[in-house]
Amino acid sequence: MRVEAKEAGVIGLARRARIAARQLANLSNNVRREALLRAADALIQHQELLLAANRFDCDAAKIQVADGSMTPSLLARLRTSEPGIEQMATQMRQVANLPDPLGRILSENNLAEGLRLQKVSCPLGVIGIVFESRPDVIPQVIALTLKSGNAVILKGGVEAARTNEALISTLRNCLAKFPDIPNDAFNLLHTREDVSEMLSLTDQIDLIIPRGSKEFVRYVAENSKVPVLGHGEGVCHVYIDVEADLTKAYDVAFDSKVQYPAACNAAETLVVHAGIARRFLPEMIRRFKSAGVDIRGCPLTISAVQDESIVPATENDWATEYSDLRISIRVVESLDDAINHINRYGSKHTESIITEDAEAAERFMENIDAAGVYHNVSTRFADGYRYGLGAELGISTAKLHARGPVGLEGLTTYKYKLRGDGHTVANFKPGISNLSS
Amino acid sequence: MRVEAKEAGVIGLARRARIAARQLANLSNNVRREALLRAADALIQHQELLLAANRFDCDAAKIQVADGSMTPSLLARLRTSEPGIEQMATQMRQVANLPDPLGRILSENNLAEGLRLQKVSCPLGVIGIVFESRPDVIPQVIALTLKSGNAVILKGGVEAARTNEALISTLRNCLAKFPDIPNDAFNLLHTREDVSEMLSLTDQIDLIIPRGSKEFVRYVAENSKVPVLGHGEGVCHVYIDVEADLTKAYDVAFDSKVQYPAACNAAETLVVHAGIARRFLPEMIRRFKSAGVDIRGCPLTISAVQDESIVPATENDWATEYSDLRISIRVVESLDDAINHINRYGSKHTESIITEDAEAAERFMENIDAAGVYHNVSTRFADGYRYGLGAELGISTAKLHARGPVGLEGLTTYKYKLRGDGHTVANFKPGISNLSS
Repeated sequence: MRVEAKEAGVIGLARRARIAARQLANLSNNVRREALLRAADALIQHQELLLAANRFDCDAAKIQVADGSMTPSLLARLRTSEPGIEQMATQMRQVANLPDPLGRILSENNLAEGLRLQKVSCPLGVIGIVFESRPDVIPQVIALTLKSGNAVILKGGVEAARTNEALISTLRNCLAKFPDIPNDAFNLLHTREDVSEMLSLTDQIDLIIPRGSKEFVRYVAENSKVPVLGHGEGVCHVYIDVEADLTKAYDVAFDSKVQYPAACNAAETLVVHAGIARRFLPEMIRRFKSAGVDIRGCPLTISAVQDESIVPATENDWATEYSDLRISIRVVESLDDAINHINRYGSKHTESIITEDAEAAERFMENIDAAGVYHNVSTRFADGYRYGLGAELGISTAKLHARGPVGLEGLTTYKYKLRGDGHTVANFKPGISNLSS
Repeated sequence: MRVEAKEAGVIGLARRARIAARQLANLSNNVRREALLRAADALIQHQELLLAANRFDCDAAKIQVADGSMTPSLLARLRTSEPGIEQMATQMRQVANLPDPLGRILSENNLAEGLRLQKVSCPLGVIGIVFESRPDVIPQVIALTLKSGNAVILKGGVEAARTNEALISTLRNCLAKFPDIPNDAFNLLHTREDVSEMLSLTDQIDLIIPRGSKEFVRYVAENSKVPVLGHGEGVCHVYIDVEADLTKAYDVAFDSKVQYPAACNAAETLVVHAGIARRFLPEMIRRFKSAGVDIRGCPLTISAVQDESIVPATENDWATEYSDLRISIRVVESLDDAINHINRYGSKHTESIITEDAEAAERFMENIDAAGVYHNVSTRFADGYRYGLGAELGISTAKLHARGPVGLEGLTTYKYKLRGDGHTVANFKPGISNLSS
């Protein structure tokens, strides 16, 4: 038996992942689904081992927290538990049971007699995922990438190394029982140097997805030669139009800010039409204050509510994602001014208008340049699960490839399949029908 | 009347284009279509002026050709004529009459009672086009971008400056008669420094499309911070399977190489199954040679045809886009070897298998990683017009946003529109239906 020496380093691993990806592209949805259901079972079966590895990481982390070299919140994200493992298995099963994202015919037409063109969805190839400490990323990502026929290279935080190793080897050992699923499809890296190398492998890796803090995502986006699917910043607005129904305005604005302020789809600024400011703002601010929300206001806001305790908003406030119980409020003279403010300061994430005026709503939705434009709805709805995508890889504020909440479709591309019978261009008589799609 | 000072430089122009783009997004398809039909008429009406400007550029270019500082082929591309202007007008009318790419509902579903989500196509915003000397790019690009509701910043070759200026001012003057179409939507730059600045304007420009030589496209792709829609290299293959029908094999291979060898979708390498090489290759090579095609062969090719005059192919040949009457031939032992050769050396553009074995064809089409995978069809079919897209911006060998021939759809993105009645996440009962698409 001849054993070939494996090429070393991240590049060798990425080349093997590329070959593995070609094998994965041939798997039926049945095999992918069955494999993921078995993998979910394996997590439960080996939970003692997984929890022991996690305790080891957490014990080491506690020492770091004690000496101040790690934050308690990082330790909290690192820790998992029996219900945590259960939750990971449930997520894997949910992804396993999603509709097949591959082999979908996106459009088709006949170019000539006997010459049939189909545009068919297929895997991207090799996906790189760089994430911080949360161990539940591993089973989720293995589920999403295998379901979409892609190989994956994961790079987790060093503080979660034992947990991540235990998770990936549990999943690999289970998936190895499927003869058509190559083990080279699932890879875990640990060092910072590995990340730098990943971000340069334009021939081997098709897409990089960073998961973690804003600073971390920005670092990856700025340093990658491989395309990055970036979870963008969320400077989201709720605009209260002069024709707003006040009950809806209070409820939606409150939900958009208070329900989970750390989320990227939480609102950071309330834009209010001058014609409704005096009726709307006093009660709104009372509700915000009673929920502990800190208020920053423009001069018109402060004069509308005659509350000198409101901190004047600076230029910087309009562009800031607070991710916290704080909101800035700006009073504007018109719908156009609201649109201009939002297009100028927003991050193209999710923007909502509250109004009973259908025409104003349409104007707002056409003219705002954002992944999500809402009418009488909380910005917090911007989410892959709430959108019915069945999964979420992130929310993209870019306009190419994928915009807004991204599900499994974000891990696919397409190819054109053209079937003929010896057709040549020299003898071609142009088109029978246009491309339907 | 107050006249505001315009912000200078490319950044100022790009900011005004961004504002103009928001206005364009509101135009109905009727207005966009009508404006383009009028613009096409204007080209014909002003053809004397356009041809005079072109003669001026050509006279200057002739001097450069005479002193060796310009190639004759560049002069040839620069020159236009009465039929050339006629052709530009015809192209504009064709694009004007294409189906509207905007406002298409790509998917929709109800998230809850009274909460309706739609994924709707919309313009990208501002498109940057960097091109070399061909003046017909200007009317074509104005047509494609206005039809898709985008503003555009064009940068042409300095040798075509007068022609380009005459074209763009003719079109702008005509479009200025439409009160809803802002003139800031159509911009022309001239200098190399302008290009460098364009490629850095990530906040103002959404997509850069380079048009020109391979080297030029590569330069733009490597130096742009703005996403680039790149016309990739075309190292395309025709694979003659052991079960090939020889008549189809001869015709398709000949067409793929000879019909227009400078095209990116022309074949560069013929891959031939060993079981058919001795029957197929002698006649194929005779046909190639009679059309003036230079042959490079692997050792098995040379021995199969017993022709010592064939130049042995080097490793470099397999990865080269000749763009000329030259082809390399490789004999392989199996379909898998053919797939491996193509995945290794191909540029992910267009790959064709010639076979009567349907199963082999499917294996090939699943396992080859390329924008186009063909069965019994010439690779030369990879083209936006032949695909029925009605237009072609380029052929992309990237996998994100747009792959293969790119039509108007490549100038669009989508936004999610969510309409409700005061819906909050706090009260949300999850999904009624999955996203249909």
